[in-house]
Amino acid sequence: MKIVRTVNELASITDTLKKDNRTIGFVPTMGYLHEGHTTLMDESKSYADILIASIFVNPLQFGPGEDFERYPRDEERDQKIAKQHSVDILFMPTVDDMYPQESTVNVDVKRRTDVLCGKSRPGHFNGVATVLTKLFHITKADFAFFGLKDAQQVAVVKGLIDDFNFSTKLIAVQTIRESDGLARSSRNVYLSDQERDEAVHLHKALRTGQQLIIDGAKNPVMIIEKVKKYIETHTNGQIDYVDLLSFPSLDKIDTVNQQVIIAVAVQFTKARLIDNIIISENGIVPKAIV
Amino acid sequence: MKIVRTVNELASITDTLKKDNRTIGFVPTMGYLHEGHTTLMDESKSYADILIASIFVNPLQFGPGEDFERYPRDEERDQKIAKQHSVDILFMPTVDDMYPQESTVNVDVKRRTDVLCGKSRPGHFNGVATVLTKLFHITKADFAFFGLKDAQQVAVVKGLIDDFNFSTKLIAVQTIRESDGLARSSRNVYLSDQERDEAVHLHKALRTGQQLIIDGAKNPVMIIEKVKKYIETHTNGQIDYVDLLSFPSLDKIDTVNQQVIIAVAVQFTKARLIDNIIISENGIVPKAIV
Repeated sequence: MKIVRTVNELASITDTLKKDNRTIGFVPTMGYLHEGHTTLMDESKSYADILIASIFVNPLQFGPGEDFERYPRDEERDQKIAKQHSVDILFMPTVDDMYPQESTVNVDVKRRTDVLCGKSRPGHFNGVATVLTKLFHITKADFAFFGLKDAQQVAVVKGLIDDFNFSTKLIAVQTIRESDGLARSSRNVYLSDQERDEAVHLHKALRTGQQLIIDGAKNPVMIIEKVKKYIETHTNGQIDYVDLLSFPSLDKIDTVNQQVIIAVAVQFTKARLIDNIIISENGIVPKAIV
Repeated sequence: MKIVRTVNELASITDTLKKDNRTIGFVPTMGYLHEGHTTLMDESKSYADILIASIFVNPLQFGPGEDFERYPRDEERDQKIAKQHSVDILFMPTVDDMYPQESTVNVDVKRRTDVLCGKSRPGHFNGVATVLTKLFHITKADFAFFGLKDAQQVAVVKGLIDDFNFSTKLIAVQTIRESDGLARSSRNVYLSDQERDEAVHLHKALRTGQQLIIDGAKNPVMIIEKVKKYIETHTNGQIDYVDLLSFPSLDKIDTVNQQVIIAVAVQFTKARLIDNIIISENGIVPKAIV
């Protein structure tokens, strides 16, 4: 595994790789790698010759109170994990190298942002889209891998790639779950034993919503209410949101007549958990989501 | 010369070209081709194997009163001219193909826009940067050619390419002039005979400013005043602006201590003419400007 720390070096390496007609898979991360990331890395192998992963804590996507400085970092451990998952090139640039001057441009994301978790993070997705634009160019990625745990990010990246005609293909990877269905998250360790038992009901609530749609339900308001009710009945968590939107356009809809996402965020004592399910209008989980 | 009318077709062609390791030069235009465009086309031949030119009247870069609908179009004539100048691929997409859905993203140009001609065209350069981002991706251009007659556009594109780490290289091409120094422009035909005689003094005024800097002048305010005075003395045109800024950052400066642009815009009866000169801090015209 080669570690590359400057934009110019990586751009030059990827230039050569493309001239040699090698295909490039890319997993962008902010480091502190966990199974969410390594699943994406493993996925790349069936798509591309070369796997590039980046570790860059991007200041642009942090809001004022959001602790860019305190974001966890562990270079040594990350390097080990990346190597174990056959990363060919680990890109770890500095902030000064990624943003060497006061920038003249940024990507403005005008849609898909003011819902779900994005609602409480104004500007966050502008920062995400801007750094991805830069990273897609530097890595010359043929494929970029994103996890559906953060489905809103997938929706925004899909819009970015389509609307700007990037040749990079977005590969959206299904959420990894525990055997009982709980979505894996580094935050699960903050759950008490009782909360851990309750937490499984987030996924069950989503499956309840899915079953309603399979059974012919079309009214988002009714479905959302039943999912909420399920969570309130089965957990002591505080619901942040339950929503049902078109996917990937993330519009409010009057009736379930297209691919949709049901998404939940629930605050437990020390952990805020999110989960979602993306299904077609007849309730089936589609093979290709974006 | 191949005429391509859809984004998908061109993206597929350029994909093959890149796999064959052909280098691609790109001249973006809004059509109604003139010598300004053909000079860029001719320039491409010494840089790239393949020349792509685009003709696309981009609605995004027109303001409310700016007559997108009435922008002159002449496909047949343009095709002839492009062919004469060895264009390999002429890309003429429709608006619907370039903007098939309500866009989720656009490029926001935050600097270099609120001066010179950009001052009176809010949003114009967002539209330019957004369409160029799309076109650079679709064409996979190694080199993109822009004329220095629109020096502000060159400055904005330079910022776009640098800050987003495009691998496309910007080639800025010097303004073509008549033998007496008047910058060529399709608007020159709207000048009366007397105005045509006067118009040469725009370039002479810029040369006067340059000479002051060669002679050691450092004070932008003084230089701007002398250039204005020269134009007022030698023409009956109405000065829209005369400015001296750093280039390509287009910042106001207190002293001439870096590469600068002196730019003028003058309104004659039926034609508004612009011209500029870009010089180093000692007054010399640099070989490579950006």
